[in-house]
Amino acid sequence: MEKPYVVGIDLGGTNTVFGVVDARGTILHSGSIKTGKHADISDYIAELAKGLEVVIERAGGHSKIKGIGIGAPNGNYFNGCIEFAANLPWKGKIPLAQLISEKLNGLPVTLTNDANAAAIGEMTYGAARGMKDFIVITLGTGVGSGIVIGGNLVYGHDGFAGELGHVITRRQNGRMCGCGREGCLEAYTSATGVARTAREYLAIRKDESVLRELNPDEITSKDVYDAAMKNDKIALEIFETTGHMLGEAFADFIAFSSPEAIILFGGLTKAGDLIMKPIKESLDKNILNAFAGKTKLLFSQLKESDAAVLGASALGWEVKDPSTTI
Amino acid sequence: MEKPYVVGIDLGGTNTVFGVVDARGTILHSGSIKTGKHADISDYIAELAKGLEVVIERAGGHSKIKGIGIGAPNGNYFNGCIEFAANLPWKGKIPLAQLISEKLNGLPVTLTNDANAAAIGEMTYGAARGMKDFIVITLGTGVGSGIVIGGNLVYGHDGFAGELGHVITRRQNGRMCGCGREGCLEAYTSATGVARTAREYLAIRKDESVLRELNPDEITSKDVYDAAMKNDKIALEIFETTGHMLGEAFADFIAFSSPEAIILFGGLTKAGDLIMKPIKESLDKNILNAFAGKTKLLFSQLKESDAAVLGASALGWEVKDPSTTI
Repeated sequence: MEKPYVVGIDLGGTNTVFGVVDARGTILHSGSIKTGKHADISDYIAELAKGLEVVIERAGGHSKIKGIGIGAPNGNYFNGCIEFAANLPWKGKIPLAQLISEKLNGLPVTLTNDANAAAIGEMTYGAARGMKDFIVITLGTGVGSGIVIGGNLVYGHDGFAGELGHVITRRQNGRMCGCGREGCLEAYTSATGVARTAREYLAIRKDESVLRELNPDEITSKDVYDAAMKNDKIALEIFETTGHMLGEAFADFIAFSSPEAIILFGGLTKAGDLIMKPIKESLDKNILNAFAGKTKLLFSQLKESDAAVLGASALGWEVKDPSTTI
Repeated sequence: MEKPYVVGIDLGGTNTVFGVVDARGTILHSGSIKTGKHADISDYIAELAKGLEVVIERAGGHSKIKGIGIGAPNGNYFNGCIEFAANLPWKGKIPLAQLISEKLNGLPVTLTNDANAAAIGEMTYGAARGMKDFIVITLGTGVGSGIVIGGNLVYGHDGFAGELGHVITRRQNGRMCGCGREGCLEAYTSATGVARTAREYLAIRKDESVLRELNPDEITSKDVYDAAMKNDKIALEIFETTGHMLGEAFADFIAFSSPEAIILFGGLTKAGDLIMKPIKESLDKNILNAFAGKTKLLFSQLKESDAAVLGASALGWEVKDPSTTI
């Protein structure tokens, strides 16, 4: 293979991690910089480019790289820009793909949001290999999604499709969501949603719980997990409720695109069966008859520490149509 | 053009209507037979083929026909079968596309469900010309949908995607739906759902209404429309509630595929602004900020009496990949 490698960049709120990846999904060389260090985007790009040149050099130079993929919050695939990302230091519309490509002698750079990158990663190296229709749901600080239909990521007419964390799961008295609306799936089933449910349960109910030993304001989904592993009744119920809500929502997603699989990705999946079992129960109960038992529920098969870089890197293989890269 | 025409067949519970259609969406020759007349599928096929031969002959013979498209309840695009359609006389799995093709010397026949046919019809001849991402919502006896993403109909891994009438719109105390579950969009916003809402309002409330002059069990959505046109307060509220529920649901659909337009099709669209205005209000109120104001709400542009045949016929132009036709 003339160009055997791709580069993946995972632009997170705290760190930007990058690596050179081969066709089997092995990260050969990697590095990272602090995202928040540079208030000026050109300083950030300069430091990032320097880091990229080091790993690319180790892999044999520019001629070995087919393309660069970036997963970034609010990343728009169509124009290669980050648009109004709340957790990044640079405001407005940043033409990130173009800026990086220019610094790297025109290497093709493609960008999308982190959940879409996860979906392409699963399709290229993970649980969705060989699948043409599937949905990746990311359960982290927020709830995101990457939807693949007919082998292609769904971007919609504006590049922003796949906001399944913001379908409304409770239309009456719904929980306030970070998006400004009420009742979003994310407000209940993200890691932060799980912690909120814990605080709610502890306030409303009288049951004993090891969670009562913690400062309620500091409870995390990890604390709820640890408590559940100790068979704490309230903690177990929190995972059950969370899973049931996900199962209800998945039944609606299946009515939309009838995917072969829904793949769970992100921090909350560490809960394993604690979260998967109630999802399955609820999905079986809520699914339209025509779809019953047809959609697999799977966990991501990307190694967690590498997943974000791998997902982003998978975009690098997609370099085909010059109009979608810069 | 060597093969300037296609044939569209609309297989309905009562009638099967068919016609030869040109590239501009004009129905040149048409005919129909009673669907329910033949308990044996081969008798039905024989009569249908006879009718088809007549209109094809008038159009210049088989050599002028590029392909035949069928819109049918529970039609599966992938295998050309009608599968377990409740309102048709033939039970089980009927290989309709194959049976018709065999009777017509191997003319390529493609089949899909009626809502998908409507979506292809809008894309080929109607309101979605030039669009690559849109959703058609059919508001008739039931609520159906045809979803187009990147210029392709979404079939899902099993051929049954796009059952948006069966997303859950009320999770608590939802109305019983024909599908056996509770709270489906269809149970509220189909023509029959509107009539149910009328019966509910009349039973619960005390207001005057011209609808009280009718036998509650016989009230139709047409009656509600007529009453609303007379400024009947309850009837106006019924359309408002129905529209609001559709707007809420549309906000979720947009979070999924971010379409350029949502196009309304079917009997209930005759209500015009009575239904469109509350949909728009509700969509504006419920939409995620990133999508605000981006998706057009449109009525179908296919002439109602012709729409089903035109939609089905549009499939006939799609004959490309031999693996999807028989």
